[in-house]
Amino acid sequence: MNRTEDVGKGPLAVFTRLADWYERDGARGCAFLNAAAEMVDPEDPARLVVSREKRWLADFLARLARDAGLRRPEQLASQLLLLIDGVSARVLVQGIRAAPQVVAEATQVAVMLIAAAGTDSPS
Amino acid sequence: MNRTEDVGKGPLAVFTRLADWYERDGARGCAFLNAAAEMVDPEDPARLVVSREKRWLADFLARLARDAGLRRPEQLASQLLLLIDGVSARVLVQGIRAAPQVVAEATQVAVMLIAAAGTDSPS
Repeated sequence: MNRTEDVGKGPLAVFTRLADWYERDGARGCAFLNAAAEMVDPEDPARLVVSREKRWLADFLARLARDAGLRRPEQLASQLLLLIDGVSARVLVQGIRAAPQVVAEATQVAVMLIAAAGTDSPS
Repeated sequence: MNRTEDVGKGPLAVFTRLADWYERDGARGCAFLNAAAEMVDPEDPARLVVSREKRWLADFLARLARDAGLRRPEQLASQLLLLIDGVSARVLVQGIRAAPQVVAEATQVAVMLIAAAGTDSPS
């Protein structure tokens, strides 16, 4: 295993969990995004729940990236979250049967982004 | 301008349009995804409208990629669509003010994916 794969294990673990989650509960994509889609009022207090969940996930990804020694962890986390939410949209549109393929595809891009981020202390 | 930027102009044009679109009409992200989020019945005939729109956009991106001589145009189109839908989710959650930043971020990843795809006939 080369160093890029090694340091990528942190944020990539989220993508592995994503595959598991879609197998169990994800038939309609991300419930938080679906809820947000139904809230037309920008002041709806439930929107705060949604934005907090996404903030939490971004922070979690950034922490995993930082712990793995990856550079610009917040930027990488934000990029990875784009992919995760893109997967949710695909599953919403194409149905749960599309999940394994689209999760694999997002994971492939995530591996690329992690490699591109690189580490502060190359071995 | 190097060859990668040059061939990327095709699919990247969609990201430029995305920025324009969010400025004008995109305050709540993608209307098709928002509609899909409200349709709980997987047999809802309106779902077909949503999946057709996404199919259309994927095909359009693939055509631009193919015309630009990029390899694996369908795979690249699918990756770019993940980003585009990820942008929609971010705008839905954070509001329209987040659009310029998140479109720029998605564009940055798109440039990377286009460069990684490469062309069949390197110059």
